[in-house]
Amino acid sequence: MTKINFNQAMENIRMSPIVAISEAVRKKSPDFKKQTGKDFIHFQRGEIDFPTPSYIIDAAKKALDEGKTKYPKSGGEDKFKEAILKKLEYHNNAFNLNSENIVCTYGGQEALELSFKLFDGKNGAGFAPCWSCVLENFIPYARVNFTEIPLKKDFSVDLDLLDRVLSEISFFYLNTPHNPTGKVFSKSEIYSIAELCHKKNVYLISDEAYEEILFDGQNHFSPISLEYDNIISAFTLSKTYAMTGWRIGYLVSRNKKITELIRLGNYTQTAGLVTFLQYAGAAAFENKLERDKAVNLMRKEFQDRRDLLYEGLKNIPGIEVEKPQGAFYLFPNFSNFVPKNLADEERKLFVFERLMEKGVATVYGSCFGKYFTDNLRFSFSATSKEQIIEGVDRIKETLQSL
Amino acid sequence: MTKINFNQAMENIRMSPIVAISEAVRKKSPDFKKQTGKDFIHFQRGEIDFPTPSYIIDAAKKALDEGKTKYPKSGGEDKFKEAILKKLEYHNNAFNLNSENIVCTYGGQEALELSFKLFDGKNGAGFAPCWSCVLENFIPYARVNFTEIPLKKDFSVDLDLLDRVLSEISFFYLNTPHNPTGKVFSKSEIYSIAELCHKKNVYLISDEAYEEILFDGQNHFSPISLEYDNIISAFTLSKTYAMTGWRIGYLVSRNKKITELIRLGNYTQTAGLVTFLQYAGAAAFENKLERDKAVNLMRKEFQDRRDLLYEGLKNIPGIEVEKPQGAFYLFPNFSNFVPKNLADEERKLFVFERLMEKGVATVYGSCFGKYFTDNLRFSFSATSKEQIIEGVDRIKETLQSL
Repeated sequence: MTKINFNQAMENIRMSPIVAISEAVRKKSPDFKKQTGKDFIHFQRGEIDFPTPSYIIDAAKKALDEGKTKYPKSGGEDKFKEAILKKLEYHNNAFNLNSENIVCTYGGQEALELSFKLFDGKNGAGFAPCWSCVLENFIPYARVNFTEIPLKKDFSVDLDLLDRVLSEISFFYLNTPHNPTGKVFSKSEIYSIAELCHKKNVYLISDEAYEEILFDGQNHFSPISLEYDNIISAFTLSKTYAMTGWRIGYLVSRNKKITELIRLGNYTQTAGLVTFLQYAGAAAFENKLERDKAVNLMRKEFQDRRDLLYEGLKNIPGIEVEKPQGAFYLFPNFSNFVPKNLADEERKLFVFERLMEKGVATVYGSCFGKYFTDNLRFSFSATSKEQIIEGVDRIKETLQSL
Repeated sequence: MTKINFNQAMENIRMSPIVAISEAVRKKSPDFKKQTGKDFIHFQRGEIDFPTPSYIIDAAKKALDEGKTKYPKSGGEDKFKEAILKKLEYHNNAFNLNSENIVCTYGGQEALELSFKLFDGKNGAGFAPCWSCVLENFIPYARVNFTEIPLKKDFSVDLDLLDRVLSEISFFYLNTPHNPTGKVFSKSEIYSIAELCHKKNVYLISDEAYEEILFDGQNHFSPISLEYDNIISAFTLSKTYAMTGWRIGYLVSRNKKITELIRLGNYTQTAGLVTFLQYAGAAAFENKLERDKAVNLMRKEFQDRRDLLYEGLKNIPGIEVEKPQGAFYLFPNFSNFVPKNLADEERKLFVFERLMEKGVATVYGSCFGKYFTDNLRFSFSATSKEQIIEGVDRIKETLQSL
C-alpha cells in the first residue's frame, strides 16, 4: 500500500545514545575479554546495582494478596496520595497541599513527558548539560522549541543569561540534583531561578529524581516548597529506593488547572498507575525505620564510590573535575587530551573511543546537548569499588599514552 | 501570574461520562437505601468482579523474588514477547511474526492511545456506537477528525457506507468483540473490512480487548492473522484474566515502521512496562491448564448472566434487544418508551433517569456517539445473578409505570 506520513513528532524521537553505547559494549565485551582477560568497566549505565528493599517487595505482595488488582482510581489511589502528602511535608518542606495537587504517574518519566506536553509547540529552556531523555524524547514529542542555557565551566548558574532567555519562553526545565554533573543546586540558586520564573510568567518544571542521593550532608531544596502556582515538580521512587523497573512516580503542582490536565493526560495514556504498586509505593514512604536504613546504606555506598572515583580522576594530570554533591554521576572535562586539529564529529568522540578501546565505557558529552562536548559522564550507580579502582588505572594509562 | 493557554489537545480531553454516572450512583446510594431498604444495581460498570487467578499472582511474586526490578528492555522483555508470539499463533492464528512486531504497553489503553497518535491531525473513522474512551480521550489527544459510521439497527455493517467513508480517511478503528453492543464481528465481516481498508490505503486499528469473552461457542477472528502491513492490533490481559488494575497489554503489527514508532512513543511516555509484571504476563499465557480453567470459569459465569439479562429484557414488551455474542454488555433500544415531544437533551436521558430513580444504574447511549441515543448499555461484568434478576424486575416495573 502507499505510504503515509506518520506523526512527525514521533518520527523525531530518538532512543538515547546511551542505549547505543551499551549495545556497543555488549558486542565488544567478548573480544575484549579474549584479548586481555579483563571485563569492561560500565561507567555508562544509569541502572542501580542495589536490590529493591525487601520491605517494599513485601508490601507489593501483600497488596496482591489483598486483591488490589482492580482499575486504579484516576489520578492515584487515596492511600498512596496520603503517603505522598506526608512525604512532601517531611522530606520536601512542602505544606498546604492536598490530594488534588498530586497525580501518580509511571515514574518521573511520565510526569515529565506530560509536563512537556502541556507546552506543546511552545518555547522552553533548560540548563546545559541536560539529561539526554529531555533532548531526545520529551522535546520532540511535545514539539517544543528548546533553548540550552549553558552552566559555567564549574557548573554555576549565569543568572544574567538565564534572565534574558526567560523573557522568550513559556517554561524552564530544572533538574536538581543534576544529571549529568552531580551538581546540587543551592537553596539560593533555586530561589533565584523560581523568583525569576515567577516574575516573568514562566512555568518551572522541576525534575527531582535524585532528591535523596546526596553526599557530605547536603540537602535538597525542593521548588515545590515555594508557594507559587507556576511550579510543577516531578518525583520518582526509582533512584531513592532502587525501583527503576517498578515505574512509580508522581507529579505535584499547586496549580490545580495543571494537575487536572495531567490527570486527564495520564488517564488517556495509560488509565493510571498499577493499583497494587501504589500500595507498595505508600509503604516505601511510611515504614520510616526500614526506609532510612535502606536509603542510608545506598547513600553511604554511593558516597564511597564517589570519593574513590573523584579522587582517582582528580589525580590524573590534565583532567578537570568538579566534586559531585548528589546523584551518581561525575562529568569531568578532557579538553587537555583532545588534539587541536580535529573536526567536531571526531573531537566529541576522541577520548570516549580511546577509553572504549581499553574497556572503559562512559557517555560522551554531546549526548547532553551542544555545550560541554569535551566532557564525559561517569556513572557509579552500578560499579563496585574494585571496578572503579581498575577503571581509574585504565583511564590513567590510556591518557598517558596519548 | 498571567495565564497561558496550555496544549488545547489536553484541554479537549474529557473523563468518560461513565465516571460521572458512577459518582452520581455513589452519592444517591445512601438515600436510596434509606428510603427503600435496597441497594443500587450497578449495570454501569466495566469492572470485573472476579479476582485475578492465583497462578498469575504467584508468578508476579516469583518475579519480584527473583529481582526482576531493574529497568525494562525497551519495547518489552524477551520472555514476555516470546509468550505473546506463541499466544498469537495458538489463539489468534497469527503466524510469521517476531519480537520486532510487538510492543508491550500499559494495557490496551496505551496501545490504542499511541496508535491514534500515529495519525495526529488526520482523518479517521469507526463504527457507532463507539467505546467512550475513543471519543473522549484518544480522538482529542491525537487531534483526530473522526467520522462515526453507524451500524444498522441490528448492529450489522453497512458496507456501502463504509466504502464511501474509507475514501476520505487515514485509519479505521474496529473493536471486536464490541463495546457497547456485545457484537462479535464475523470472519467474513472482518475480512471485508480489512480488504476494503487495504485497497483504499487505510490503516486498521483493531481493538481486541474482549477477544476471549465469547459465548455460544463463538470464535474471535483476529485481523492480525491477515498478512497485511496496514493492521495494528491492540490486546490486553485486563478482561481475559481479570487483571484490569495490572495495566498489561501489547500492540502487534506486521509493519515494523509502525512498531518502531510505537516503541519510541512508549519509551518516551513511560520508559516501558513494569519489568516483573511482564513475567506475570508471560505466565498468564504459558500455564495452559490453569489458564483454561480460569478463562472457562469466567466465560461460563458471564454467559449465565448474559442469558438471564437478555431473556429478562427481551420479555419486557417494548424493549428491542440483540443477543450479545461476546464482551459483557447488552445495548437494548428504548425508543418505545421515550415521549415523542422531548428535546434531544431530555430525550437522551429520559429512560436512564427513570431507571436511576429506581436504583438501576446504566450508561446512556449518547456516551457512545451521536447515533443510538435511545439505547442504554447494561454491563454484567460485576453484577451477580441475583442482582440481575432484581434489576430486571425493577426495569419492568419502571417501564410499565411510564
